[in-house]
Amino acid sequence: MPDIGQLTINTATLRKQWGLKDIIAGVAQMGIRGIAPWRDQVAAAGLKEVAAQIRDTGLAVSGYCRGGMFPAIDRTGRLAARDDNRRAVDEALTIGAECLVLVVGGLPKDGAQRIVSKDIAGAREMVRDGIGELLEYARPAGMKLAIEPLHPMYAADRACVNTMAHANDLCDELCPSGRDGLGIAVDIYHVWWDPQLKAQIERAGAKDRLYAYHICDWLVPTKDLLNDRGMMGDGVVDLPLVRSWMEASGYRGLHEVEIFSERWWAEDPRTVLATCIERHARVT
Amino acid sequence: MPDIGQLTINTATLRKQWGLKDIIAGVAQMGIRGIAPWRDQVAAAGLKEVAAQIRDTGLAVSGYCRGGMFPAIDRTGRLAARDDNRRAVDEALTIGAECLVLVVGGLPKDGAQRIVSKDIAGAREMVRDGIGELLEYARPAGMKLAIEPLHPMYAADRACVNTMAHANDLCDELCPSGRDGLGIAVDIYHVWWDPQLKAQIERAGAKDRLYAYHICDWLVPTKDLLNDRGMMGDGVVDLPLVRSWMEASGYRGLHEVEIFSERWWAEDPRTVLATCIERHARVT
Repeated sequence: MPDIGQLTINTATLRKQWGLKDIIAGVAQMGIRGIAPWRDQVAAAGLKEVAAQIRDTGLAVSGYCRGGMFPAIDRTGRLAARDDNRRAVDEALTIGAECLVLVVGGLPKDGAQRIVSKDIAGAREMVRDGIGELLEYARPAGMKLAIEPLHPMYAADRACVNTMAHANDLCDELCPSGRDGLGIAVDIYHVWWDPQLKAQIERAGAKDRLYAYHICDWLVPTKDLLNDRGMMGDGVVDLPLVRSWMEASGYRGLHEVEIFSERWWAEDPRTVLATCIERHARVT
Repeated sequence: MPDIGQLTINTATLRKQWGLKDIIAGVAQMGIRGIAPWRDQVAAAGLKEVAAQIRDTGLAVSGYCRGGMFPAIDRTGRLAARDDNRRAVDEALTIGAECLVLVVGGLPKDGAQRIVSKDIAGAREMVRDGIGELLEYARPAGMKLAIEPLHPMYAADRACVNTMAHANDLCDELCPSGRDGLGIAVDIYHVWWDPQLKAQIERAGAKDRLYAYHICDWLVPTKDLLNDRGMMGDGVVDLPLVRSWMEASGYRGLHEVEIFSERWWAEDPRTVLATCIERHARVT
């Protein structure tokens, strides 16, 4: 059996095969150290029940997915986002998550979730304001917020923070030290291509902002913008190199496998977990 | 009839409906000012014949697509790329193109065009060296080279220059002034998301590097990584804003419509051209 090391599993990786209770049990049975659940899965399984099950298994919670989605076209929408994000902080505290991951949102939408503005600079201002406001709620409560830069192909509809540099800039403005509750989730799927990646990981590390490290791989060809992420080793990312940058910058946390993939969702979930363990040990 | 203004048509926009001779004739008949042909279409129609036909129509050639693809795993591959790029320069001169557009290539491939390296930093060095070498051939011949940053979703397989900042850095290193033959093709499909876009357009403009401006739109959802670009006005890009940045930075060239789209390839080509004219006049 390969060494499990710092492995943790984002529950999206198995969301089509198992409900959350089965995922938690399966991950724990395999000896994996942690889990990172999604809100919709937690809501379906029951927050208190999930929190109790996680405590019983002794699993770490490497992150809670997700808060964010700040931009909205009117004040009603922004207030709804604020309130929903506060609930996400509360839930993250209940399940004992290391951090609440923020997918910050793209262009402003209306109440029916239709994009109704092309003002991406304005969206980025709403994101800054939204994170700043949420930080006032999360920091006293003791929940860290992790900005996750998403790949630029999601800039319009999911997250208009698309580079580590932008995430670092936001942190500089809102919360200069990561010790004060605002940092970054580095997901190699989103940032592997960036020529500034090494420098921006170093910049984040110097301010104690490296809160999470998500791994998978970039496939060539990538057949779908959403659900064709690769298992580690099946794509083109130099995972050991990026890991070495994270570690040289002070990161000592878990390595979270998050794979949205129709191909892996069609596999037996125990096979997926065994593959995650083997690949994590061998190619990352 | 709307004002045609600075409109020019990249021939990929009509490549499934018409051969190149029909495209040139159709574009000229509509009163459009320019064209930007692809090498495979030119080869199929015959270089001399195409050059003569373009001269007869009086069309401008806003760019020639494309050179580049510099990285290769061995010297044989890199020499083959060098020679092919020199031929592309010769062809661009024959048809009187404003510039040769460079899609620089992604991770190194072997002779069978399989990616065989994960060293993206090394690929970027090959790109720098390849452009520098090609510049020595193109500059004395009088053909400008336009680096086209491609969207990060193409970093692995098509181009590992993915931001305006990176293209500007390459220009700074290889050819400090755009008056000496190396510049940038700004394609909004690839760069619209970049929070540095305005600043990097200004930086390029200050060095006379703005060689070309390509327009289309980013659709939400985007259903395919390659062939789901949008017609201007159908997506989320604030085209008048980006155009204002180009013009404020000194760009006075043509506006090249380049749309890879199964949806538009299924339309009558005259309808596509009429739509390009109307949208260019109304929403860009």
